[in-house]
Amino acid sequence: MTTLLALFRRPDGGDEALAEFERRYAAEHLPLVAATPGLRATRVQRVTASLTGESEFVVATEMDFDDRAALDAGLGSEPMRAGARNLREIAPGLLTLLVLEPFEGDGG
Amino acid sequence: MTTLLALFRRPDGGDEALAEFERRYAAEHLPLVAATPGLRATRVQRVTASLTGESEFVVATEMDFDDRAALDAGLGSEPMRAGARNLREIAPGLLTLLVLEPFEGDGG
Repeated sequence: MTTLLALFRRPDGGDEALAEFERRYAAEHLPLVAATPGLRATRVQRVTASLTGESEFVVATEMDFDDRAALDAGLGSEPMRAGARNLREIAPGLLTLLVLEPFEGDGG
Repeated sequence: MTTLLALFRRPDGGDEALAEFERRYAAEHLPLVAATPGLRATRVQRVTASLTGESEFVVATEMDFDDRAALDAGLGSEPMRAGARNLREIAPGLLTLLVLEPFEGDGG
């Protein structure tokens, strides 16, 4: 399993800007994610608290693929390319996008 | 479902320090996590790439609980308290600890 973790920082503009980002993320972006080939599971979560001091992150989305090759194919697909364009519009500069792989299991 | 997401930044000291953190995290910390009451699932992952410029994060661990009350009970339990003490030793200042809740389902 290889996971794509998208962490979104809080947009400038207060609660209104955050609500607008969340609205467009759900309405415009998540349908593109859902159409990505090879995607096995998606979990979209809101950051509701930070236990280590204030956090800049407001939304965390995990997208699971079978392996890194499947992730790379998904990233190159039209839905994900459209999703990337969409994020440049609705969350410019707010995204940290990480590839995660199992901590144990380096051997395969 | 309420998720506790632990994001660890890269320790000072290069690859050796990172390997030592990972070794102690697996040997000392994860057994304490595993003993936490109310924990439904744990996923420990290594950050193997960042697609949005260099990332300071090296490990991401998700711990799932039934709800916020179960998470709070888990956080107050002896294993999690011991785990917090352990992290102050093996990863001082490197942890971002976030509470995540479903993006949809504000009503329950």
